[in-house]
Amino acid sequence: MLAFDHERVVVSKKFVFFQKLCGLLRCLTFEDVTGHDAGWAGLMEKRISAAEARQPPHLLSVPTVSESPQHDGNHSHNGKAVGFVLVHAGAGYHSESKAKEYKHVCKRACQRAVEKLKAGAMAVEAVTAALVELEDSPFTNAGMGSNLNLSGEIECDASIMDGKSLHFGAVGALSGIKNPVLVANRLLLEAQKGKLSAGRIPPCFLVGKGAYHWAVHHGIPPCPSDKMATKFSLSAYKRNKRKMELAEKVETEYKQTKKRRQSSDDENDSGSLDTVGAIVVDQEGNVAAAVSSGGLAMKHPGRVGQAAHYGCGCWAENAWNLNPYSTAVSTSGCGEHLVRTVLARECSTAVQSEDAHQALLETMQNKFISSPFLASEDCVLGGVIVLRCCKCVESQPPQDIQALLVEFLWSHTTESMCVGYMSAQDGKAKTHISRLPPGAVAGQSLAIEGGVCRLGSPVD
Amino acid sequence: MLAFDHERVVVSKKFVFFQKLCGLLRCLTFEDVTGHDAGWAGLMEKRISAAEARQPPHLLSVPTVSESPQHDGNHSHNGKAVGFVLVHAGAGYHSESKAKEYKHVCKRACQRAVEKLKAGAMAVEAVTAALVELEDSPFTNAGMGSNLNLSGEIECDASIMDGKSLHFGAVGALSGIKNPVLVANRLLLEAQKGKLSAGRIPPCFLVGKGAYHWAVHHGIPPCPSDKMATKFSLSAYKRNKRKMELAEKVETEYKQTKKRRQSSDDENDSGSLDTVGAIVVDQEGNVAAAVSSGGLAMKHPGRVGQAAHYGCGCWAENAWNLNPYSTAVSTSGCGEHLVRTVLARECSTAVQSEDAHQALLETMQNKFISSPFLASEDCVLGGVIVLRCCKCVESQPPQDIQALLVEFLWSHTTESMCVGYMSAQDGKAKTHISRLPPGAVAGQSLAIEGGVCRLGSPVD
Repeated sequence: MLAFDHERVVVSKKFVFFQKLCGLLRCLTFEDVTGHDAGWAGLMEKRISAAEARQPPHLLSVPTVSESPQHDGNHSHNGKAVGFVLVHAGAGYHSESKAKEYKHVCKRACQRAVEKLKAGAMAVEAVTAALVELEDSPFTNAGMGSNLNLSGEIECDASIMDGKSLHFGAVGALSGIKNPVLVANRLLLEAQKGKLSAGRIPPCFLVGKGAYHWAVHHGIPPCPSDKMATKFSLSAYKRNKRKMELAEKVETEYKQTKKRRQSSDDENDSGSLDTVGAIVVDQEGNVAAAVSSGGLAMKHPGRVGQAAHYGCGCWAENAWNLNPYSTAVSTSGCGEHLVRTVLARECSTAVQSEDAHQALLETMQNKFISSPFLASEDCVLGGVIVLRCCKCVESQPPQDIQALLVEFLWSHTTESMCVGYMSAQDGKAKTHISRLPPGAVAGQSLAIEGGVCRLGSPVD
Repeated sequence: MLAFDHERVVVSKKFVFFQKLCGLLRCLTFEDVTGHDAGWAGLMEKRISAAEARQPPHLLSVPTVSESPQHDGNHSHNGKAVGFVLVHAGAGYHSESKAKEYKHVCKRACQRAVEKLKAGAMAVEAVTAALVELEDSPFTNAGMGSNLNLSGEIECDASIMDGKSLHFGAVGALSGIKNPVLVANRLLLEAQKGKLSAGRIPPCFLVGKGAYHWAVHHGIPPCPSDKMATKFSLSAYKRNKRKMELAEKVETEYKQTKKRRQSSDDENDSGSLDTVGAIVVDQEGNVAAAVSSGGLAMKHPGRVGQAAHYGCGCWAENAWNLNPYSTAVSTSGCGEHLVRTVLARECSTAVQSEDAHQALLETMQNKFISSPFLASEDCVLGGVIVLRCCKCVESQPPQDIQALLVEFLWSHTTESMCVGYMSAQDGKAKTHISRLPPGAVAGQSLAIEGGVCRLGSPVD
């Protein structure tokens, strides 16, 4: 059982809305922490001076581990199986009617990753296991049940990054493979082995038919595309097709291209942006991140989104001399927006600063919603899950304890984002559908929430 | 005629080699500048203290415009047709026997861009024109004459970025189109128009068959793949295939996979890494960058390299409030190395600092050759062309002069890199094959050269 408080912040171009629901997660201490209701307050220094007056700034930051209550050593260090996973079933719109399903798949994905961690697997293997579970759900826009493209076909993007080796594997516009993340993972593993025959450099990114043949050649079983479509994805395709034909009919009748393009802005259906992803830290403190997507509904065949783009769909980087924290990020949302802002890498860089929560908030605001690269967009849609962690050794007689301090966050500009998280020592995962508050405008506002988790194991 | 001095620096993991051949380019002043032979000296502060003693540091920086000799106003401002282009025919190995051809295609590419600039075209259009010329050459590894993949097919990558709108277009693993850059450019232009029917977001990156059909649908003529292969590319394919089969036979016989992979490192043929690219600044100070590649020889079908990757193949960003300079970058070399270091974007960010030359040198050294992302690589192959520019207005009675100050650089870790450059007011382009000096190890050393160009036009 977890004592969980979470914190929630919403910043908008038009208004600033702050709601602090609660405060801290301490996975291993099982202590309840009283939530601090901070009411309404402002965050971004220049934009929100009026709001700032209502709330002292120190209440706005995620509590750091040093601020958190004392842990209970009795429950903290019952073995070496430590590690943590945070997954998302997409930033988009998660209807109340399907909330249970989304939460359920997040829970299962966390469990798969934790099973791997408990068996001693490294972060890359655990994150892959989580992704397979997310892809296999017919409710997510990844693998099984992916959005159909303009031609009624499924073409998937996926990528994975290993924070230890800093290797990366990605596939784009891949058809006929049930779990695209397995191909991305295999590309990563093959690249780690070194050069191919005759000194050829192994690929890190394969697309289309070539990716399919490479996958099958490497023992990943093919899956007929029609078996990957679901009742839900097929009916969404038919609905979208009718909508498109109607919009194009209106355009043809009025021959007002410019007007069409403006008026159709409102019709953008953010309900199906459910790219999935996961980030993991293993018992050695290695991080890994992965992402998988069926792409935008009615996309042009061959379109590749952020899920296959280096630095855009996922990022994982172990701590090294210049970076005190290991970081992992996975993104979701409108691929073109996430590509042009290289959002995963930006978030990873940002959370190396002292206050991860503030850094992520500023990145989402300044480098995503207000990014000069998206200046022409009035609606910037995306979400991220982020973790950073560092190791420390504490003396707790009769033995020393090696602790992993994990701060984790999620933030989105879409109407909602479904997340789940779990440590290797938890009995079950926590899940949550984060939503923008009533009145906040999707694409112009953001929500940010998170927590802190401390994982300990005895030093050998 | 141009007065041109160029500067050359080589830094290696193993040794530091510095050779200052010359100093300055001033396109519009037609003044000869005496080269400063700085002899041997060191550059990287910590690495080269011994070398530093031999040469005062101030001689090691590219002279800035303010340091350069006074210009001759009589020749500088004879019209509004200003602008500048820098192209590359690849970082790799350019044999002496083909040097003339490489230089010739660079010259023609510069001329095509300048023709567009003279006709009032913006940077994006001019950079596209340069790329088409580079792609059409049977000697470059882009478009016509591209490397063949493992299946004997041609699959091209290309991308383009507009520094003004910050839009980006890219194609990957594209077959059957003679000029991939035209598709990338068209994707960029279509994205600039705004959303598609029913609020769909236009794609910025298309691959494979989907990219081909999109191109043909948008009026770009198809070209049978066999017409894109040349005598040279076909014979290289046959040679590489034999080499590969031999290497695999040895592997099968000895069943020593690890040994094979190590021993085959030396066989990597850097002779065919001739990705092409161009960067342009137009008379309004807008920048654009583009890149195009047939990819690595004997690559797996579907493999996409840096030329299609956002931030990796090219970058262009007009000056804005946080960035004093407009910057443009195009890269060449081993795609996987350029992707994993996001080299184009890194170089663009770096040259916002005061000393562009020093910043690029440090970036190539610390974020490419010694990048933690390529720690497992003993041979890091790539090259970049970079420009940065800023506007200023000078009072020169009877009228004010708007000047564009352009600093341009190229740097490579490959054995050679072929470049060409030209201003809109020059009669013909300058070309140059930059080579690592004798004894420098490709993949572990770098060369860097560059110049400064001042372009002026009367203020309206």
